Amino acid sequence: MSHILFTPDAVATTLERIRAATPLVHNITNIVAANSTANALLALGASPAMVSAEEEVESFAAMAAALVVNIGTITAPQAAAIARATRAAQAAGTPWILDPVAVGALPFRARVAVESLAHAPRAIRGNASEILALAHLREGHAEPPPAGRGVDSLQAAEQALHAAGRLARATGASIVISGATDYITDGTRIATVANGHTMMTRVTALGCTATALAGACLAVEPDATAACAHAMVLIGVAGERAARHAAGPGSLQVRLLDELYHLDRDTVTREARIAILAP
Amino acid sequence: MSHILFTPDAVATTLERIRAATPLVHNITNIVAANSTANALLALGASPAMVSAEEEVESFAAMAAALVVNIGTITAPQAAAIARATRAAQAAGTPWILDPVAVGALPFRARVAVESLAHAPRAIRGNASEILALAHLREGHAEPPPAGRGVDSLQAAEQALHAAGRLARATGASIVISGATDYITDGTRIATVANGHTMMTRVTALGCTATALAGACLAVEPDATAACAHAMVLIGVAGERAARHAAGPGSLQVRLLDELYHLDRDTVTREARIAILAP
Amino acid sequence: MSHILFTPDAVATTLERIRAATPLVHNITNIVAANSTANALLALGASPAMVSAEEEVESFAAMAAALVVNIGTITAPQAAAIARATRAAQAAGTPWILDPVAVGALPFRARVAVESLAHAPRAIRGNASEILALAHLREGHAEPPPAGRGVDSLQAAEQALHAAGRLARATGASIVISGATDYITDGTRIATVANGHTMMTRVTALGCTATALAGACLAVEPDATAACAHAMVLIGVAGERAARHAAGPGSLQVRLLDELYHLDRDTVTREARIAILAP
Repeated sequence: MSHILFTPDAVATTLERIRAATPLVHNITNIVAANSTANALLALGASPAMVSAEEEVESFAAMAAALVVNIGTITAPQAAAIARATRAAQAAGTPWILDPVAVGALPFRARVAVESLAHAPRAIRGNASEILALAHLREGHAEPPPAGRGVDSLQAAEQALHAAGRLARATGASIVISGATDYITDGTRIATVANGHTMMTRVTALGCTATALAGACLAVEPDATAACAHAMVLIGVAGERAARHAAGPGSLQVRLLDELYHLDRDTVTREARIAILAP
Repeated sequence: MSHILFTPDAVATTLERIRAATPLVHNITNIVAANSTANALLALGASPAMVSAEEEVESFAAMAAALVVNIGTITAPQAAAIARATRAAQAAGTPWILDPVAVGALPFRARVAVESLAHAPRAIRGNASEILALAHLREGHAEPPPAGRGVDSLQAAEQALHAAGRLARATGASIVISGATDYITDGTRIATVANGHTMMTRVTALGCTATALAGACLAVEPDATAACAHAMVLIGVAGERAARHAAGPGSLQVRLLDELYHLDRDTVTREARIAILAP
Repeated sequence: MSHILFTPDAVATTLERIRAATPLVHNITNIVAANSTANALLALGASPAMVSAEEEVESFAAMAAALVVNIGTITAPQAAAIARATRAAQAAGTPWILDPVAVGALPFRARVAVESLAHAPRAIRGNASEILALAHLREGHAEPPPAGRGVDSLQAAEQALHAAGRLARATGASIVISGATDYITDGTRIATVANGHTMMTRVTALGCTATALAGACLAVEPDATAACAHAMVLIGVAGERAARHAAGPGSLQVRLLDELYHLDRDTVTREARIAILAP
């Protein structure tokens, strides 16, 4: 029934909606990703704003079309801002997405991430280690499962799918597990996206960028699982195209923005590799 | 009389003065723009330093050749640092410029921006929405005029000119309204700069970069209206040249730095589109 | 005896060890350098993580393979985090390196830098002004020697060598003085690296990047003087190669990452200009 949302054509429609609406995407993000994600959102056609102060986040999250929360360089004041922003987003009906960067390695951010789940994130995107750790921590384990180390994904995305399903059903969020193939699930349906390029793992903040683009998609597509899958296609197709001519990860970071800017219905329809597996 | 300052030749002279003096430009800026503006200042020939701690800003603002204050990702500690830095700059005679990013949308930063006006900024640069909002807020209105949304300029630059004139006369600052044509006014004279390229609106932090370059110009050109107009020419010409060969906004961001580095008297004299309208 | 460590071949071996081990490099860094240094570490083959919260740095510094401390945009909370992180690194045996950005100009960061020396940094990298100032301040002078201004090096690297020797012997750290020729000393041995390109001085955060790469080298090479010299070769060779085709500093920043990614034994062996002078 909703299978029509998991097609190249539906991705292209989401892209066109972003271009038409230029949704204001509120980002609470880290110092590594701030410039990259602002540029990616602009290149795609959205209107980014980075606003992190406790004094400002509530009203801004309420007026924004989507909120992106990234804990990559979390500090105590930012943690307080995240609590306020996510509560305000929930109250205002602003869809919001969590990027639980390195959540498995560090108890402070683990607490921030788990507590934010009470404010009904529409989506969560991480690598396999991060999703596995977050699911585990949310279930009350004091420690994440072993093998999480920094932001590397030491488990294959496939292995985290079971945990993602539990996390989705418990929180109501759609979960993205990034990897060579991305998995997106709401606990019932499972979509896959096979776009992307291995050199993207050597560019910093592309996971954060994927999350930010998912924020833009959530602003225009109410089915969060579809919105997230569309975002993974958009960054994946742009990344593949960028990698084709990139001389290395520096060039790839630059060309990815050029490609996001030039994405159109034809390109997306031709190159998207999106599918829905279940139910 | 001062018309000679609003010529391509005068812009080239300011550029050469920056290259000769390598002025130390103190930036209190946001996490999106920090890398971009440091690189732009270096490429132009200035010496940037980003210093934001309350413990450090007073002595640094006093020793710097110019101070750039940007509230894009303002926090409470940064607000306190801005109060100290701008007071110290005023006391030391360091010219300083304010970039009131998104001032219309958020009361906390509105208060920071309005209070800083007491410390005699030499210049203020924003888009039409921001200048309109700042003028309105300074005049004691609790709310900015409608239509400000994030960092987008929803009013045409022309519409904000009247407010800019009032703001200039009340504060003593020269006001830059960025847009397809930039307007720069001290409340009496109005200069225009018609350089730039529309793709520049799809690269983050180029407004912040313009403000930072204006800081470098203020360090070597005492007429603040001229200094700001020169900065808008320099970034505009570099942006046009970059856009000519850029494959998209990612490439544009990179080439803009290359072009700033290569700007010289010939190029500036040939390509500057600067004029003074009044009185 | 240890001369074999100061050869092009030894640099290539360090590079290969980094690629094999992908060491987790913990960075407490500034808002200008965060993206650049994360990308450089990824391009080289290391695994960067930027973690600055007081609540997180102790456990992370203990689990990381190296810690990089950069005071470029220091704040009071970050100063507290640095104290904790460096103590934890010392206790855990994690090698750590200090980048005392602009230490001569600002007393607050001077105190942070000098106090951190009690926690046994394995290395310190700065320009001549910074090393001269740090040595001076550590010796109890209230003021650094004159001529430090921002991050510019106003003294030639050679002039700071004497101070570096004293600093090395007093702290046990190997000291890198960056310049046209880099000097690296442990107070007894003096190594030199003559790679690099003058256009690199017009790209922001490349000093910070050198320090971060030294962190990666310290993770795999226990001789800190050798590790630092190897890092200066790696960034210098990549920078030279990047500059050969760069259209300006913007392109140079991008191509430097591409070149770091493609560095291999052949290139390093052919292009490294490393020597040991004494004893």
